[in-house]
Amino acid sequence: MAADRYVAITGGVGGAKLALGLTQLLTPDELCFIVNTGDDFEHLGLHISPDIDTLLYTLAGQSNTDVGWGRRGETWQFMHALRELGGETWFNLGDLDLAMHIERSRRLRDGARLTSVTRALAAALKVEYEILPMSDTPVRTMIATVGGELAFQHYFVRDRCAPAVTGFRFDGAAAATLTPEIARHLDDPRLAGVIICPSNPFVSVDPVLAVAGIHERLASARVPVVAVSPIVAGAAIKGPTAKMMLELKIPNSAVEVAQHYRHLLRGFVLDSQDAALEAAVAALGIDTVVTQTVMLTLPDRMQLASDVLRFIKRLK
Amino acid sequence: MAADRYVAITGGVGGAKLALGLTQLLTPDELCFIVNTGDDFEHLGLHISPDIDTLLYTLAGQSNTDVGWGRRGETWQFMHALRELGGETWFNLGDLDLAMHIERSRRLRDGARLTSVTRALAAALKVEYEILPMSDTPVRTMIATVGGELAFQHYFVRDRCAPAVTGFRFDGAAAATLTPEIARHLDDPRLAGVIICPSNPFVSVDPVLAVAGIHERLASARVPVVAVSPIVAGAAIKGPTAKMMLELKIPNSAVEVAQHYRHLLRGFVLDSQDAALEAAVAALGIDTVVTQTVMLTLPDRMQLASDVLRFIKRLK
Repeated sequence: MAADRYVAITGGVGGAKLALGLTQLLTPDELCFIVNTGDDFEHLGLHISPDIDTLLYTLAGQSNTDVGWGRRGETWQFMHALRELGGETWFNLGDLDLAMHIERSRRLRDGARLTSVTRALAAALKVEYEILPMSDTPVRTMIATVGGELAFQHYFVRDRCAPAVTGFRFDGAAAATLTPEIARHLDDPRLAGVIICPSNPFVSVDPVLAVAGIHERLASARVPVVAVSPIVAGAAIKGPTAKMMLELKIPNSAVEVAQHYRHLLRGFVLDSQDAALEAAVAALGIDTVVTQTVMLTLPDRMQLASDVLRFIKRLK
Repeated sequence: MAADRYVAITGGVGGAKLALGLTQLLTPDELCFIVNTGDDFEHLGLHISPDIDTLLYTLAGQSNTDVGWGRRGETWQFMHALRELGGETWFNLGDLDLAMHIERSRRLRDGARLTSVTRALAAALKVEYEILPMSDTPVRTMIATVGGELAFQHYFVRDRCAPAVTGFRFDGAAAATLTPEIARHLDDPRLAGVIICPSNPFVSVDPVLAVAGIHERLASARVPVVAVSPIVAGAAIKGPTAKMMLELKIPNSAVEVAQHYRHLLRGFVLDSQDAALEAAVAALGIDTVVTQTVMLTLPDRMQLASDVLRFIKRLK
């Protein structure tokens, strides 16, 4: 009998942690990733795909675990020289990281799809898992703030998430078509479950769900869709999720994340610190499991991955 | 009385040596440079101007004197990472150098002229001398070889000057118009002389002369035009000049360089090792001076610059 297959939807650093845990338990034949490209952008003539790169570097064992982003052994000679020349330096581009952006941009200019380019880059980094951009056409997350709309990286990096958020728009999502690779995986009869990694619901996962065909498939999936809460004890492990919820007048609670995904979810993974919230999530008609979702070590990542997979099996 | 002004025409590393010597004797008000852009090219989406950069780095005190090209303190992290990704690595791009290409490309994409971009980059590197690209529009040196025509950098870097040369073409030169900055300098009533630096006549200086308006102005100049021989004792100090002459069936002699420029030159600077050639150059109707043209040290560069300027004064 063919092995069960799983699809994990992931954004940045938080999602990549669980992604790494899942790769310790599932083979490349059993697991693939759909990755947010809503925070992709063109900068200095380069196509930059931050979330794809975070996952690539993580799975290649090349992520910089000291600073939590970028590549291990990264250096900053280019940035020093660019600063000297009066160039745009609000977005840090490491010397190693630059190679990724230059090579990706070259292949895209030559007419390749982002899906194919990502596959080639993954192969070069000896990553065997399929990493699927949510779309081959540009979808750009735009952040509505009290001071006006900002492109995602302007909000996130340049302005350090300071502006108060009032909403989100995924420019290009309506026109984006499902890639044949994603369709194949979501329609695969061997599909056993879909995992929404603990990424920001608003700017990491929602852009993926906004691509025509993905939300519909998940909402009508015959297999369990489960999400791991990125909010633990009312705070985000990383990034601006909790700050955004505050600004959007949404209570800082994992329950609200479950609520956010309620039309999709069969199951929701709560952190042990939020065990008291089980009943509130259950009231949404969503099954729960409570475990340690804070991943500090590789064993933490593997344990959570194992708990998620067992949860999915239980829900089937 | 306003100071005399000089224009120096230069290509790569050899020319930049004399250029540096000249800057030790003349102020930014007294000296400007017209630089070959025939070996500019688009690579990995970047506009690369090797000869402009060589001069910029040299005058900024940032040239790598150990290896004879590129920037001091250069590192190669980007190239290592690009190689790992299977990218195009035949052209070396240092981490520091990349900043120049990225920033130049960004400004050009934004619509600035290469002349303005070069001025801004020079200012950022605190180079006060005016460095004028020979053209704001693309002129591309094409090398005819026994195996077919090659773009300059393919011939020069990728194929390491191995193919036997049969001729040259300066694609775009006929359509290139003289920049107002070059016209202003060559038409300046204070112009006292033009110096053709010891660069390759075929691929460093001829592209400059091919730009409509430059050759004509030099040929009819009321001030002395002098060239310093890049060929010494039948060999090129650097680069493929002597090899090209052999392949073009031109004797490897400084006399042939004088002959090459004969319609322009009032004076020609021979190396002491070639003192015996004075009569042959004189027979072309060109005045000569014999001095040490091989520049190993900064005092060598200054001494040659001083000899050239004295020579020009003598010819006036």
